[in-house]
Amino acid sequence: MLVNGIPRVTVRLKPDEPHIVEIIDQRKLPWAFEIAQLRSVDEVAVAIRDMWVRGAGCIGATAGYGMWLAAIEAMRDPDYLIGIKLGARKLLQTRPTAVNLARAVERQLDVLRRAKTPEQALGLVRTTAEAIAEEDIEACDAIGSHGLKLIEEITMRKCGAVVNVLTHCNAGWLAFVDIGSATAPIYAAHEAGISIHVWVDETRPRNQGSRLTAWELAQQGVPHTVIADNTGGHLMQHGLVDLVITGADRVTRRGDVANKIGTYLKALAAKDNGVPFYVALPSSTFDWKMSDGVAEIPIELRGGEELSEIEGRLADGRLGAVRLFPDISPVANYAFDVTPARLVTGFITERGVCAADEVALRGLFPGN
Amino acid sequence: MLVNGIPRVTVRLKPDEPHIVEIIDQRKLPWAFEIAQLRSVDEVAVAIRDMWVRGAGCIGATAGYGMWLAAIEAMRDPDYLIGIKLGARKLLQTRPTAVNLARAVERQLDVLRRAKTPEQALGLVRTTAEAIAEEDIEACDAIGSHGLKLIEEITMRKCGAVVNVLTHCNAGWLAFVDIGSATAPIYAAHEAGISIHVWVDETRPRNQGSRLTAWELAQQGVPHTVIADNTGGHLMQHGLVDLVITGADRVTRRGDVANKIGTYLKALAAKDNGVPFYVALPSSTFDWKMSDGVAEIPIELRGGEELSEIEGRLADGRLGAVRLFPDISPVANYAFDVTPARLVTGFITERGVCAADEVALRGLFPGN
Repeated sequence: MLVNGIPRVTVRLKPDEPHIVEIIDQRKLPWAFEIAQLRSVDEVAVAIRDMWVRGAGCIGATAGYGMWLAAIEAMRDPDYLIGIKLGARKLLQTRPTAVNLARAVERQLDVLRRAKTPEQALGLVRTTAEAIAEEDIEACDAIGSHGLKLIEEITMRKCGAVVNVLTHCNAGWLAFVDIGSATAPIYAAHEAGISIHVWVDETRPRNQGSRLTAWELAQQGVPHTVIADNTGGHLMQHGLVDLVITGADRVTRRGDVANKIGTYLKALAAKDNGVPFYVALPSSTFDWKMSDGVAEIPIELRGGEELSEIEGRLADGRLGAVRLFPDISPVANYAFDVTPARLVTGFITERGVCAADEVALRGLFPGN
Repeated sequence: MLVNGIPRVTVRLKPDEPHIVEIIDQRKLPWAFEIAQLRSVDEVAVAIRDMWVRGAGCIGATAGYGMWLAAIEAMRDPDYLIGIKLGARKLLQTRPTAVNLARAVERQLDVLRRAKTPEQALGLVRTTAEAIAEEDIEACDAIGSHGLKLIEEITMRKCGAVVNVLTHCNAGWLAFVDIGSATAPIYAAHEAGISIHVWVDETRPRNQGSRLTAWELAQQGVPHTVIADNTGGHLMQHGLVDLVITGADRVTRRGDVANKIGTYLKALAAKDNGVPFYVALPSSTFDWKMSDGVAEIPIELRGGEELSEIEGRLADGRLGAVRLFPDISPVANYAFDVTPARLVTGFITERGVCAADEVALRGLFPGN
C-alpha cells in the first residue's frame, strides 16, 4: 500500500542484498516511517518478540525470511540442519498465539529436510520465504475481492449512504505483507468508489488501532474516526455500525477466533444488535489441529508496562513516554481473547466467505 | 475514606469558613492529593464541567453546595431568586448525563421557593446542601451493608477462596461524598475480613479506573489488579470473575443503566458467562421519568483530546501530556453508554437489593 504516495510492503529481502531482511519498524509509527535492516535470525527474533513487526501474516512472513537468514548462517557448518533448527527454535519462542509464525517455520523445516545438498537447501529456503510472502499478498487480495461483495450489498441496501465498518486492533496491511485482511475489503470498497467510513478502536494497551490502523487508513485517504475500545457497543445500539470486520491470530477448525484482546466484547455487542461480525483471514491462520478455542489456544500474557506506560509526542515535538499510574497497583496484560464461533457471522478467506462452523470450513478447505 | 491514613470526604464546606466549598481536585490524582477551594457558583460550575470532581453522587453533592454559594451571592440583590436561578442554570449546563446534578439543583430551587425571607432561604439552602451530602454518605453506607451479603454468599460458596470482583470506571468514594457505591460492598467485605480482589478496568479515555479506583483501593489496602478495558470478557470466560459491580449515572424506571462508556460491553460478557452483574447506586440516581434508557438518556459527547492526549509522569518525575496519534485522524468521544435492564442481575441500593425491572423497583421505591 501507499506510504506518502510510494508503494511499500512490510517485509522483503533488500534488493541486490538478499542476505538482509528489510522491515517497516512499526514501533516508530505513526510518528516516523523507518525501514529496519535485519541481518541474522537473532535480529529477526528480537524484531518479532519486541513487536517491531506484528500481526499474524507479517509475523509469518518475517519468520519465513528469518529462516532464510538462519540457513545462511548455518551453512558455515557442515551439519547445517542443527544450526537451522536452533534458529527455528528461537523464532518459535518469540510469540505463542499467532499460528502463522509456527506454520512458516515448520514449512521451512519441511523444505530443508527434502534438500539433498546445502546449495539446494539454501535455494529452497529462499524460494519458500518469498513464496510465503507472495501467498500472503495474494490471499489478502482475494479476501478484498470476496469481502467487497458484502460491502456492496450493504451500500445497495442503504441506497449509497455511507457504510460504517468497525474494526479492532490492526489487521491492516501492516499486519500482513500488503493489503491486510480486515482492511482488504475496506480498501477494495474505497477503490470501487463506495462511500465507506471506519470506526477505529484505539486497541489498548498497545494502541495498534489509533497508532497503526488510523495511520494506514489516512495514508490511503479512507475516512475514519478513532474511538475508545469501550465505544463500539454504544455505536451499534444507535445503528452507527453496519458491519464489523476484524482479523485473527488463530482460528480453530470449528471457528473459534483468537484475536486481539477485546474482540470478544465487540462480537457480543454485534450479536446483541444484529450487526454482522466477520473475521477476515488467510487460510494460513487456521489451526486445523485445534477445536475448542477458549480451552486450547495459548493466550500470551505480556508485560504490565504496556498498560502502565505509554509513548507519544511531547509538547516540544520529541517522543517520550509517560507513566499512567503509580506502580503500587499490579497489572495483568492478556494480549488476546477468544471469540466463540457462535458469535461470528462468517469468515472472509482467500477462497471466499463461509459460515463459522466446522462443516462450512471443511467445505471450503477440504483435506484439513 | 482514608488518604494517607487520614479520613477524608470528596466535598464539604470549609470548617469555620462555610462560604468556601472544599473539594478534592481529582485531576491531580493519583500523583498528588490536593484540596481546591471554590468561592462562587461559577467556580463550582467550572469544577464540575472540567471534572475536578466527577461521579454521580459527588457531582450531585457539589452542585448542592454550588447552590449554597449561588444563594450567598444572590442575596446582595433584593430579587434574589433571579440570581439563584441563573446560578442553577449554570450548574445544569455543565454535564447532562448524571441525574444527581439536576436533582440536587431542583431540590434546592424547591426549598428556596418555600422560604419566606432571605434569611430563611439562606438557612434552608445550606441545610439542604449538607443534607444532600449526608444522605449520599448514608446511602453508600447502606449499599455497603446490602452488597456485603452478596459477597458473603460467594465467599461461602467458594469456601473462603478469594472473591474476584470486576469494576468499571470509578464508582468509588471519589465518585460520591464518601464510601462509594460500587466500592461500598468491596470495602465492607474487606473490613469484614473476606478475601477479596478487584479487577480494575483502566476505563478509557479518562482512565478513571487506573487513576482513581486503583488509587483509592490501594489507599485502603484492598488487593487489586489494573487491566485494559478489553480484558473483562477473557477473564470471565476463564472463571476469573465472580461478580461485576459498577455504578450508574442514571437509571430509568424500568432499570436501564447509563454508566461510563464500556459498561454495556462488560454486562454482555457477564451475561454470556453467567457472571452476576450488579449495579450499585443510591436512589438519587434513578430517573423515574424515563423508561427506555437507550432512546431517552442524553449521552454526553466530550472533546476528542481526551482520547488523543494523555497525562502522566515523565521520566524526570514531572507531570506532562503526550499526544498519542496525529491529529489527521478524527475522534469521537462518547462518555457513557446504556446497559439494558435485561443484562442487569440486580440493583444494590440503600433500601436493599432488587431485580432490574419496573415492578421490583416500584416495590422497593413505591410512590415514584
